[in-house]
Amino acid sequence: MAARKTDVIDEIKQEAEGVYKRIGRKLKPQMKLPIRALSNVRYRPGTGFFQLRGRNKVRTLTVNTVKTFAQTLKMLAMSMDLIKSKRHSTKREAYYQAYNWGEAAFGSQEESDTVMDDAEALLGVNRERLNFRADEHGGEVAGELIVIDRDRRTKKRIEIDCTKFGSGAYSVPTVVEDLQFKTKAKFILAVETKGMFERLVEEDFFDKHHCILVSMGGVPSRACRRFIRRLSDFRSLPVFVFTDGDPYGYFNIYRTLKVGSGNAAHLNEYFCVPRARFLGITPDDIIEYKLPTHPLKEVDKKRAMDALKNDPFIQHHKTWQKAVDKMLDMGVRVEQQALAKHGLEFVANTYLPNKLKQINKFLP
Amino acid sequence: MAARKTDVIDEIKQEAEGVYKRIGRKLKPQMKLPIRALSNVRYRPGTGFFQLRGRNKVRTLTVNTVKTFAQTLKMLAMSMDLIKSKRHSTKREAYYQAYNWGEAAFGSQEESDTVMDDAEALLGVNRERLNFRADEHGGEVAGELIVIDRDRRTKKRIEIDCTKFGSGAYSVPTVVEDLQFKTKAKFILAVETKGMFERLVEEDFFDKHHCILVSMGGVPSRACRRFIRRLSDFRSLPVFVFTDGDPYGYFNIYRTLKVGSGNAAHLNEYFCVPRARFLGITPDDIIEYKLPTHPLKEVDKKRAMDALKNDPFIQHHKTWQKAVDKMLDMGVRVEQQALAKHGLEFVANTYLPNKLKQINKFLP
Repeated sequence: MAARKTDVIDEIKQEAEGVYKRIGRKLKPQMKLPIRALSNVRYRPGTGFFQLRGRNKVRTLTVNTVKTFAQTLKMLAMSMDLIKSKRHSTKREAYYQAYNWGEAAFGSQEESDTVMDDAEALLGVNRERLNFRADEHGGEVAGELIVIDRDRRTKKRIEIDCTKFGSGAYSVPTVVEDLQFKTKAKFILAVETKGMFERLVEEDFFDKHHCILVSMGGVPSRACRRFIRRLSDFRSLPVFVFTDGDPYGYFNIYRTLKVGSGNAAHLNEYFCVPRARFLGITPDDIIEYKLPTHPLKEVDKKRAMDALKNDPFIQHHKTWQKAVDKMLDMGVRVEQQALAKHGLEFVANTYLPNKLKQINKFLP
Repeated sequence: MAARKTDVIDEIKQEAEGVYKRIGRKLKPQMKLPIRALSNVRYRPGTGFFQLRGRNKVRTLTVNTVKTFAQTLKMLAMSMDLIKSKRHSTKREAYYQAYNWGEAAFGSQEESDTVMDDAEALLGVNRERLNFRADEHGGEVAGELIVIDRDRRTKKRIEIDCTKFGSGAYSVPTVVEDLQFKTKAKFILAVETKGMFERLVEEDFFDKHHCILVSMGGVPSRACRRFIRRLSDFRSLPVFVFTDGDPYGYFNIYRTLKVGSGNAAHLNEYFCVPRARFLGITPDDIIEYKLPTHPLKEVDKKRAMDALKNDPFIQHHKTWQKAVDKMLDMGVRVEQQALAKHGLEFVANTYLPNKLKQINKFLP
């Protein structure tokens, strides 16, 4: 899925030439950008992610837009330099590099971030392919996977065996576009907390079940989502998502990972994981396993009502609506660590193996 | 520095026998706990960390303390089981395991956490040696280091070479007590942000300067601090700390890493890194390198004033007081990414090499 570097450079050149030519013909140069808002989004299970409806705005060079226009072009030029020099820049570094842009310098990092979002939407590629990256955790990985990367100094290919980290793990970099993989794993298990990830490592779960464990650390970052997506695409690997049984786990974590989010709809294509299925704790599990719970907080209730009312993904899936209704009826949420009531090894020896016998019953 | 497992088991048994014997002699059983508060703390540069002044409270079994008393003993018993079964339990898992303690079960996780803190203070060891762990990031590592761990399944020794992760990194586990090391590195460079860490990896910094890079991700977690401490002890490695030039970087990150914090004084002995020196951005650097700055926020000013007035570490070091005064006079803070104004490679090719030529000028 990683685009060849030249593609992006070509696209930048093409965009720049378009502007240049219009100027040559004494026409006002233009850039066409998709509108990034929930109102311009649709969900179709066939495509598997929140998709832009295709409405665009056109930015024409005028007295009012001259600064943003210049900044967008400079940002594209910076991206081209980065790609050529094989470097990546964080959003914050990009902001500071732009200190030398004279009158086009940014007033704040928010300004700079917005222009970066524009650049990404303009070319229809994710920021990482423009060699920009976020300053965030990429998640951790352990299990039956070999990651193929290059040594920075020797440029030689290196193989990173994710079964060989003992109690530690492989930390995913923020840009994963050029990583390649080797694996015979049967599935990817994406886990909400580092604590549960380490539990499963300690119980030797990946070895017994031939899988790849990924710790998301709450809502997965772009890097983590893109990593899971590329890995899942590589061998059509199913992705099972193991979160707490609460609205945050259902929507903020699982739904975002699977179909994306509204305000970054131009990116969902690259970051969503359509193969994801929900193996986290459901209201039915609370009853079946007699799990300790906590009452739903007001924010939980609000989030659940919102999802029933406004979330195209939940609205599409009756089984999800039933689960959310049941949670609201029961009035409780449950943490994945609640399984420890039956002993630390219960999750690895009983809960997950039981669940994995009935994959067809997973919430979609 | 990792204690032998039997030591802790012996200590737990000794504590339990003390209680048992007093009951046999018809005396009220007692536990002696250090008082954990800034008022019971002193700073001596010789020892190098905030140290308890030695004031204790005695918890005697009475009608009022019976539940806590029982919980503390049950917590110690849980720890002994964990050590024997070579498992670790997160704080949250411990709370849920205690659901089966009948009347001694906890009302909330806060209760359970407090009793865990008591258990650790009682024995004078860190929680990790009781096989409890936090649910947190342990930091990332790249550079001239081999970490020695054990394969969970085969129990065989494995060597993890931290130069061989390409653009990724080694993710430090939450419990590092049993890790061993091999290294010829000259120093450890602990970096505030993941973004700067990846910058230095990309610039091949650890190879050129024979060092070990650690990404702390803001205020370092216990696991990250303990990892740096054990690594620094192993070969008397100097630790240089590279943060933003602001009160958060100076006090919350650097000071906590070096000498510990007030409210966890019974732990500083294990988590402080006395060899740490400050290589982060100083007010003088802002002038020397003409760096872009931001005005100090109110919270920054308050934090700086507080430190001048109340922090025993800052009060001990005149050079730190001068630096903080200068920052307040200038009224600005600076981010480590501001160096990118001079190009992405400036930090690796100019700033850090210049600084490393004058280690004796580092803030203490």
